[in-house]
Amino acid sequence: MTMIDETHEPARKSWVESANGHPDFPIQNLPLGVFSVGNDSARIGCAIGEMILDLKALANAGQVDEHWRLALGLSTLNAWFAHGPADATALRKRLSELLSDEKHKAAVQPLLVPMERATMYLPCHIGDYTDFYVGIHHATNVGKQFRPDNPLLPNYKYVPIGYHGRASSVRVSGEPVIRPKGQRKAPDADVPEYGPSRRLDYELELGIFIGRGNRLGEPIPIGEAGEHIAGYCLLNDWSARDLQAWEYQPLGPFLAKNFLTSISAWVVTPDALAPFRRPMPPRPSGDPAPLLYLSDEKDRESGGLGIELEVAILTEEMRAAGAEPFVLSQGEAATAMYWSAAQILAHHASNGCNLQSGDLIGTGTLSTDRATGLGSLLEISRGGKEPIQLPDEEVRSFLEDGDELVLTARCTAEGAVPIGFGSCSGRILPAR
Amino acid sequence: MTMIDETHEPARKSWVESANGHPDFPIQNLPLGVFSVGNDSARIGCAIGEMILDLKALANAGQVDEHWRLALGLSTLNAWFAHGPADATALRKRLSELLSDEKHKAAVQPLLVPMERATMYLPCHIGDYTDFYVGIHHATNVGKQFRPDNPLLPNYKYVPIGYHGRASSVRVSGEPVIRPKGQRKAPDADVPEYGPSRRLDYELELGIFIGRGNRLGEPIPIGEAGEHIAGYCLLNDWSARDLQAWEYQPLGPFLAKNFLTSISAWVVTPDALAPFRRPMPPRPSGDPAPLLYLSDEKDRESGGLGIELEVAILTEEMRAAGAEPFVLSQGEAATAMYWSAAQILAHHASNGCNLQSGDLIGTGTLSTDRATGLGSLLEISRGGKEPIQLPDEEVRSFLEDGDELVLTARCTAEGAVPIGFGSCSGRILPAR
Repeated sequence: MTMIDETHEPARKSWVESANGHPDFPIQNLPLGVFSVGNDSARIGCAIGEMILDLKALANAGQVDEHWRLALGLSTLNAWFAHGPADATALRKRLSELLSDEKHKAAVQPLLVPMERATMYLPCHIGDYTDFYVGIHHATNVGKQFRPDNPLLPNYKYVPIGYHGRASSVRVSGEPVIRPKGQRKAPDADVPEYGPSRRLDYELELGIFIGRGNRLGEPIPIGEAGEHIAGYCLLNDWSARDLQAWEYQPLGPFLAKNFLTSISAWVVTPDALAPFRRPMPPRPSGDPAPLLYLSDEKDRESGGLGIELEVAILTEEMRAAGAEPFVLSQGEAATAMYWSAAQILAHHASNGCNLQSGDLIGTGTLSTDRATGLGSLLEISRGGKEPIQLPDEEVRSFLEDGDELVLTARCTAEGAVPIGFGSCSGRILPAR
Repeated sequence: MTMIDETHEPARKSWVESANGHPDFPIQNLPLGVFSVGNDSARIGCAIGEMILDLKALANAGQVDEHWRLALGLSTLNAWFAHGPADATALRKRLSELLSDEKHKAAVQPLLVPMERATMYLPCHIGDYTDFYVGIHHATNVGKQFRPDNPLLPNYKYVPIGYHGRASSVRVSGEPVIRPKGQRKAPDADVPEYGPSRRLDYELELGIFIGRGNRLGEPIPIGEAGEHIAGYCLLNDWSARDLQAWEYQPLGPFLAKNFLTSISAWVVTPDALAPFRRPMPPRPSGDPAPLLYLSDEKDRESGGLGIELEVAILTEEMRAAGAEPFVLSQGEAATAMYWSAAQILAHHASNGCNLQSGDLIGTGTLSTDRATGLGSLLEISRGGKEPIQLPDEEVRSFLEDGDELVLTARCTAEGAVPIGFGSCSGRILPAR
């Protein structure tokens, strides 16, 4: 389906022992991120097992193409992402070689840092953050709560629906979630009041980082859209449902969302995901074909993302009792997404809107069509009407102070070494 | 109402002759912008009459507080705006002194550049752009087209409605407007099609630049909101109405807006506007009082902006005939705005959302309650049903290729020297 090269060979092992059999970061993954250790400045690194390879130091040591040194020496990935897919692939091959061939061990090992000692940062300066709504089961589930007979609006199967989010409040995994205050109006109340949200929720999404951008006024053809993707991460679109219900008409969600968006620290590249791509799920019979500017045969054949997503919760009481996080949902991205990543990008730029390297795009909540694969508490508790019971007898309709949410993702495919995304977590703090 | 100091004295003249009696930039204004001349790098300047004072050169010459030199030496105003209102006021006083007192002429005159030789840039790197909807007459006019009996939604008089816009496509006045393509669906069509917008429109707005920001999780109290405003500009929120109608449910406008937003080049400071502030118009009887976090007596007394806004059109045929632009609307910001700038900021940060220096906020379309003060063609032509006739017999429902739109603004008050904003213009180019 998609080209698989030697960097994916299951037999390939790293001399970094912790990488071999690592659930997230074997040598077949090689995701990029930004980290610091001690008082050193933030810099670009590559995850390998329990270690991070310092790519700034690697570039300064002359171990990679010297044309990459400037971009790899910065404290964000924006400039590197602007290099585009050929350089991304070449870097991957070089890193795979350096980290597998014993002959490089002496030179490269000193440039490794234990992950547990590192502080992680946002991978990019995010110029713009856009959130889409391509999870059709999520859109249907949420739509049903408002319009039982007509959950999906007429545009949904023609338009990859999206809206602009807030870039300044995107944070890397681990950022605490201060319960937001805002206007909320109970259905039976005459007037709204301002206070802490009572219906704080999460949304399980994938994030897409833009690689090469496009110029203002120049759309990105669907057939080229994939070349503009630098990589993927996990994204939690924290949502205050009571604020959202009151504010969102007629211009969409605003303060219900922009208090925080969390993303995982490691950017998994399109090359790393190649073995896990699959055909897009066939459109249900009767659905219209995508308009031409969103239609591409290669994308139909390999636009599906075989990424298994999972959300778990750890409450204050569970933490005190030493319990494991409780899994709230599990499901595969490919079956949740009505529109592919390429369709998302092609649509976003179809009016000439300029995407820039390092911009972040959320897919929207990725719920499957099963009760065990719902990507938000709004869906799981049916708008709060059916609270769920946790193993320790606690119940939840929405998130409570002290709750920690952990998103993870894993990719598996026959004949391929599984890879993961690391985690995207956040813990709720009381409103100030 | 608001403190007026010697920088506003009507008797104060500048030794820059073109400033005295200048409609926009007398010495009582002193707006800031970013410009370049020839091959010099972009730098911060202050408009004075037909000239620009190079503030980088001025700072390097030791003519201002040396603690300002770093921020004034950059190619955007972000760092300077982060200095906050005390330094902004002190700079204004110093510039007023330098440009009025003849004794400074010999030192300062060499640092002046003719405006006609300058290229203007965006004043700031815009981290996030948010657009509000506080023009109550606009909201009513537009609402009527969709819901004749119930034009304003129930939240409008409680919530300053806003949504996130696209920062990457904000451009300074003069940027051509490439007619966007997108999905549009005629009411009687079965399916949408992708093609050039047929209902391209403008929206007359004010822009607000953030001065000092707030930290994530820390709301801005309404009483302090004014101190976070660095200045104002004109803003044209170009809109493709056919794309908007089809795409905006349920998450708001997206590709209908993000192909371009134009702003005027000069940032008019809160100090310059002080003589033109007035009480907010009284809320119509029966309207609810603002919730406490949006309520401030000082803001009620002086939150109104006495800014007279004007929109004019120059078509290709008018241009060929040497005709003057035709005025489409005129009206005052204060009477158009249901919520003040301070209320907009306090609401935006009320959930802890972090605003950053240089962020841009649009007010939303500012239409008055008169037929001569409508801020968009959607309102003027009543959704295209009542095309307007131009003086040369051309008609317009929406914008046609070759049309140029020019927004201007002027402030007048008894006992004060009038000031203006310069212009915000853009000309429509055919779709690509």
